[in-house]
Amino acid sequence: MAAEEGQWVLMATGRSPTNIAVIKYWGKRDEALILPVNDSISVTLDPDHLSATTTVAVSPSFPSDRMWLNGKEISLSGGRFQSCLREIRKRAQNVEDEKKGIRIKKEDWGKLHVHIASYNNFPTAAGLASSAAGLACFVFTLGKLMNVKEDCGELSSIARQGSGSACRSIYGGFVKWCMGKNNDGSDSIAVQLADETHWNDLVIIIAVVSSKQKETSSTSGMRDSVETSPLLQYRAQTVVPERVLKMEEAIKSRNFESFARLTCADSNQFHAVCLDTSPPIFYMNDTSHRIISLVEKWNQSEGTPQVAYTFDAGPNAVLIAPNRKNATLLLQKLLYYFPPQDNDLRSYMVGDKSILSDAGLKSIEDVEALPAPAEMKTPSQKFKGDVSYFICSRLGAGPKVVTDESLALIDSVTGLPKGV
Amino acid sequence: MAAEEGQWVLMATGRSPTNIAVIKYWGKRDEALILPVNDSISVTLDPDHLSATTTVAVSPSFPSDRMWLNGKEISLSGGRFQSCLREIRKRAQNVEDEKKGIRIKKEDWGKLHVHIASYNNFPTAAGLASSAAGLACFVFTLGKLMNVKEDCGELSSIARQGSGSACRSIYGGFVKWCMGKNNDGSDSIAVQLADETHWNDLVIIIAVVSSKQKETSSTSGMRDSVETSPLLQYRAQTVVPERVLKMEEAIKSRNFESFARLTCADSNQFHAVCLDTSPPIFYMNDTSHRIISLVEKWNQSEGTPQVAYTFDAGPNAVLIAPNRKNATLLLQKLLYYFPPQDNDLRSYMVGDKSILSDAGLKSIEDVEALPAPAEMKTPSQKFKGDVSYFICSRLGAGPKVVTDESLALIDSVTGLPKGV
Repeated sequence: MAAEEGQWVLMATGRSPTNIAVIKYWGKRDEALILPVNDSISVTLDPDHLSATTTVAVSPSFPSDRMWLNGKEISLSGGRFQSCLREIRKRAQNVEDEKKGIRIKKEDWGKLHVHIASYNNFPTAAGLASSAAGLACFVFTLGKLMNVKEDCGELSSIARQGSGSACRSIYGGFVKWCMGKNNDGSDSIAVQLADETHWNDLVIIIAVVSSKQKETSSTSGMRDSVETSPLLQYRAQTVVPERVLKMEEAIKSRNFESFARLTCADSNQFHAVCLDTSPPIFYMNDTSHRIISLVEKWNQSEGTPQVAYTFDAGPNAVLIAPNRKNATLLLQKLLYYFPPQDNDLRSYMVGDKSILSDAGLKSIEDVEALPAPAEMKTPSQKFKGDVSYFICSRLGAGPKVVTDESLALIDSVTGLPKGV
Repeated sequence: MAAEEGQWVLMATGRSPTNIAVIKYWGKRDEALILPVNDSISVTLDPDHLSATTTVAVSPSFPSDRMWLNGKEISLSGGRFQSCLREIRKRAQNVEDEKKGIRIKKEDWGKLHVHIASYNNFPTAAGLASSAAGLACFVFTLGKLMNVKEDCGELSSIARQGSGSACRSIYGGFVKWCMGKNNDGSDSIAVQLADETHWNDLVIIIAVVSSKQKETSSTSGMRDSVETSPLLQYRAQTVVPERVLKMEEAIKSRNFESFARLTCADSNQFHAVCLDTSPPIFYMNDTSHRIISLVEKWNQSEGTPQVAYTFDAGPNAVLIAPNRKNATLLLQKLLYYFPPQDNDLRSYMVGDKSILSDAGLKSIEDVEALPAPAEMKTPSQKFKGDVSYFICSRLGAGPKVVTDESLALIDSVTGLPKGV
């Protein structure tokens, strides 16, 4: 439904990063409010490489709330979208746009409908926390449009109700989601531990792993774990609290050795709990295992962690290097075992492509000439095609308003997504 | 060194089964005595399909103890062999062979040396508990030769010092290894819960899974788990004791539903602890995961377990069906996904080959004509070559003396392995 003749459309556009947990969130104590069984800690990734952009438009001409994701209309009727919409509408304030001559009183927001268009600059189905970026952006941008004055903590609590891990995408840098104690979830919010400049030599390399298996969604997976894994509550109550304290200390002091050990151990324990679930959940596959072995053997041969790994609810490896040097060494090892299927090196590396030249890899011939990593004793079999592509990124900032109106995803005249 | 002219050689031959744990042993509280952190329960497999045969010979002409495994001489100097030899020698009694005119007084055993030849009727490196069968047979046969009077409990305690799980191979049927409390390990023995006739309609199908990965030995793997997994002690102290009670009850009452649920959950939890180890240990691979998914989906679609699965320290699946009917249905599903690489059906099924005709599979064409399992919704990709072969077996009896001297592995004249 387009805006009627003479009727206004008011819009806001925002961009929110994705995040990757280094102390994992797995298990809710309240399904409706999305309250977790333990604290979690994440790093926010550079939105230039992995983020959601969302435009929210409001117009008296819209007869209903509608949403489009990556150009395709999706239903807004789910409880999670509705929770976020309701919580932001509740906090809406007067809005005045003098240039356009638009005035919206806070009590009018309940009668107005919104159009929401969202777009991820990375594959949605790749298991790269697209819902975290998406729901954080949904809440952030809706809040901007409706002139919501609440601080980031409050916004994070609303985003949490859309998708648990989305609350951590409200900040840049290092973020802790405090599980909270209250039954109403009011203290289950995210806080920033340090911003993205605090430890800015970290380099992130993501191996997007090819998978033929249909994966268990994290929502149903963690429900099954809470109901059936005898190890989950022990992890949540006894193991994680200590790890959270150590991880905060490691981040504060930029202690990469401690950071890496905790990150790897916690990723593995999260997948152990998945395996302890009935029926068992397998998110990692043989390729994931090979990447872990490669990193573990390198770390062991050096006597101290060179790189950390972590895996979410899928087979993709997120690898964190303490500096550019280790990142290039890692990339050489990875490309030795996982050369590009179609020999096209440029499209095999997404994000910060300059890591390729730093690693001395300008052509496919350079990849083919890579020596086998010395620390790997097994015969050097290669696994071409088992990694779809790599992303090179770094830590990034939290949600931002996109002021350039040409970047809005909704047409300011029709009120509909551009190009639809 | 052959027996000298005119000098006698006295021999005994025994055969011992392998066993597969349904409540797993993972972690020692005493490395030297091999005392476990929890009780475990196993089923003994039919020795016709999976067993070790051992001949022990003694002669005054032998200048030293020597051992051959599958025709190849191996060192006996390891602490584990030495513990078993010492403990059995300690309990040796007078032996008299009237026919051969041989008399050995118990105090003379300490001066006599033995030759030991052992042979597994299944691949040693396939991760099918060959050391359990082998060490049980070593202790059992040595005990027979030396006229040791101790009961099975005492023998199990000696076999335990050779290889933990070997203590459970001293009995047939269903066996429990009680962890014990004493520091000297005297109460860490195996007991029989029920013999192999108690629940004799169970059918065992083993999928020997192809693997290119070098596996972590269970000895070093469980040491790493004890030292680094935060979940192991919780499993040992809190989860397993309850499961052991429930499993004993399930076996007693032949309750397959309970037996299957406990078996699968405990296999998965053992592998979860492996994953929680630093560096993580992966024994299962994508093929193992696919077999689990196949069984889980079938069980779910029927609403009650049709088959149980369990995996030891390797990728091989041990599948337990409650009866012949379920075993044939299982085999049809397995062969649909994992047809033989070389189209040779007969050599693809080892052990009780009659299961093939029961499943209506007389030729490779019958395998090719199998329908996709209805409960599997995903596109029916096949995985030819991912299983090396199958073994069909059943529950079996404990160690036995082999009286037919022609089956002895050592030449009674030379005192050396036959054919060496």
